[in-house]
Amino acid sequence: MRLARIAHPGGVAFASMEGDGAEAQVLEIAEHPFGRPNFTGRRWPLADVRLLAPILPSKVIAVGRNYSAHAAEFGNEVPAEPMIFIKPSTSVVGPNAAIKLPPSSSRVDFEGELAVVIGQPAKNVPAARASAAVLGYAIANDVSARDQQKADGQWGRAKGYDTFCPLGPWIETAADPADLALRSEVDGEVKQDARTSSLVHKVPELVEFVSHVMTLLPGDVILTGTPDGVGPISAGQQVSITIEGIGTLTNPVQAG
Amino acid sequence: MRLARIAHPGGVAFASMEGDGAEAQVLEIAEHPFGRPNFTGRRWPLADVRLLAPILPSKVIAVGRNYSAHAAEFGNEVPAEPMIFIKPSTSVVGPNAAIKLPPSSSRVDFEGELAVVIGQPAKNVPAARASAAVLGYAIANDVSARDQQKADGQWGRAKGYDTFCPLGPWIETAADPADLALRSEVDGEVKQDARTSSLVHKVPELVEFVSHVMTLLPGDVILTGTPDGVGPISAGQQVSITIEGIGTLTNPVQAG
Repeated sequence: MRLARIAHPGGVAFASMEGDGAEAQVLEIAEHPFGRPNFTGRRWPLADVRLLAPILPSKVIAVGRNYSAHAAEFGNEVPAEPMIFIKPSTSVVGPNAAIKLPPSSSRVDFEGELAVVIGQPAKNVPAARASAAVLGYAIANDVSARDQQKADGQWGRAKGYDTFCPLGPWIETAADPADLALRSEVDGEVKQDARTSSLVHKVPELVEFVSHVMTLLPGDVILTGTPDGVGPISAGQQVSITIEGIGTLTNPVQAG
Repeated sequence: MRLARIAHPGGVAFASMEGDGAEAQVLEIAEHPFGRPNFTGRRWPLADVRLLAPILPSKVIAVGRNYSAHAAEFGNEVPAEPMIFIKPSTSVVGPNAAIKLPPSSSRVDFEGELAVVIGQPAKNVPAARASAAVLGYAIANDVSARDQQKADGQWGRAKGYDTFCPLGPWIETAADPADLALRSEVDGEVKQDARTSSLVHKVPELVEFVSHVMTLLPGDVILTGTPDGVGPISAGQQVSITIEGIGTLTNPVQAG
């Protein structure tokens, strides 16, 4: 099932999606998308609604240096245990929302990533049972002010700006995260081209690791790390991240 | 005004406090403590309720190395601009709740800090107008797994464990943060003894800096950094942090 959050003519709602292309429809969910959702019976053509970030997470946990080729491109080692940091929930925006470049940074990079969306409260979950804690998978862009990331040491500023966590376009509940193609394009030019099978710490291990540190709540998001090929974006450009079996997350870039 | 969140015989509520010592009473607030709160008319002796974390923040922004003597005790420089990182909201607990030591760490430290509680949505707030964005001040303990903090580089794990952000005992709306005495004790022994006038980046500057990065929402918390004197805590001990004009935040320490 594809779960989205939409702005429709009467307001904002969670929805599931049916069909593809010009036939695609969204079916309004009565409350939230966790468990077995209840439907209101209202539906619209996808073209008549606006997709929002598919979930508003209480926290976004991101994993650094989790593809060895990306760690190497900045001269770093892959850490033996996942290196985690938190992005503020206010950084989350939906598909087609603008990434706003802060005037204080002279270098902002895109980072295409597989996002894990948590489906139920999870604490101390073993990897073998991780999938039961997961609602589904989405695409994220871990936008980073690279100059500030290097200068600050801690990444709270560089990765914490409003709009620095595009998420979407929806949550695919049926995806298997083990070996999906991930491709990032800037203005149609391919910049990242990798597979999630290259993740050093795989999704079940990440859920285990993070849930041993902190309680994961429904809607929380784990960003699994970015492959090599990251690079700068500038105002007027458009970033698209495609993950096999999920879809494409596209965001324009604007001066902030 | 002192704003608290309480578990009373009929449930959980925000409350304001009146009186001191054995005379202290809590007055139930109808909804939330922002703006001008409405009171239900119900009140209890403070001794008959349990104090909870005074707010459940959507995010906790912490500032590293913001007292020069603390930066020096670990051989670090004070950064020219505030160095920020995010603690997950799930790390917040209230006064008298146990700090739980994770089995994966062999060294967990307390860090007494002045906490700024945001009162209204704030983006790009100049320092001169920062106080209008602030609801009040509380006390926080930025508990840190020191070994993991050093090993990981990013501090998301070391400072992100459940129970690693004791907050309370209430929010004092009338405090002036410019020059308050801060004292941390472990089992009654004074470990930190400093004044907030030694903060390198002062509260108004922190609100300006952080709000230029991310939108601050009502209830969000900025931890302003810890002075020198941090040190380890172990199961069975009790940590108390006292800030002049606010109160004392006490938490026992337990094996996790």
